[in-house]
Amino acid sequence: MTDVTLTEDECWGLLAAQEFGRLAFVIDDAVHITPINYAVDRNQHGLRSVLFRTGGHSSKLFAVELGVPVALEIDDIGDDEATSVVVRGFTRHLVGDEAHRAEHLPLRPWVGTDKTEVVEVMPEVVTGRRFPLSRPWLSIRLH
Amino acid sequence: MTDVTLTEDECWGLLAAQEFGRLAFVIDDAVHITPINYAVDRNQHGLRSVLFRTGGHSSKLFAVELGVPVALEIDDIGDDEATSVVVRGFTRHLVGDEAHRAEHLPLRPWVGTDKTEVVEVMPEVVTGRRFPLSRPWLSIRLH
Repeated sequence: MTDVTLTEDECWGLLAAQEFGRLAFVIDDAVHITPINYAVDRNQHGLRSVLFRTGGHSSKLFAVELGVPVALEIDDIGDDEATSVVVRGFTRHLVGDEAHRAEHLPLRPWVGTDKTEVVEVMPEVVTGRRFPLSRPWLSIRLH
Repeated sequence: MTDVTLTEDECWGLLAAQEFGRLAFVIDDAVHITPINYAVDRNQHGLRSVLFRTGGHSSKLFAVELGVPVALEIDDIGDDEATSVVVRGFTRHLVGDEAHRAEHLPLRPWVGTDKTEVVEVMPEVVTGRRFPLSRPWLSIRLH
């Protein structure tokens, strides 16, 4: 068995089924990866995008204000296979009425700290793959 | 409760306890994140580092040959708290005798495709945090 490339719809299905991922971006040549919880939304043009909340002084919001490209990754590791989906694109800091979009989503901060700001990831490329896992040592352990 | 910053030893303890993470790097302004399985090793100077295997034509190996900075992330999400550890640094493609270091580690490819090359992540900054999760809706669902 080899890797299977997922369709964009399959990728969005997996994204909608999870709420925890990792956001990667670069500031001053340093690669950052940070966990986020997120929700899939549709914007006013009917296009799917990803929203997340963050604090007003976070490195994530700094990256948003700088306008750097980002990537959001989710994955799911099963016994026999794994999936990984990556959304690459740019971000927008939602302010005013647009920030209220988050209130209609299951986008609840998992962390007790103030996450007052709402950010949208505008997807440019959505890719995913499903790959079989070969871990014979897992069954060997049973013997 | 607020975030707790982990010590570097705690970070290495968590890294040693897992074997699945995500590697982020940038090629031509595009942010890549890709799942990897890895193992913690010590190099000839006694310094801790991370090894992983990859294919000879992978984007990961291309990033290694370009010498771009990388970040490796692992996380663990429990009911009440989560941890996240990030190793930032540069990579080396191990060749010749050095590549044999991987044979002494629990670094088994999970994926059936050829992953003949061995790469070392040379850590420059290792950071981690433990943060409480506030997900009251999980208990609400029980009622």
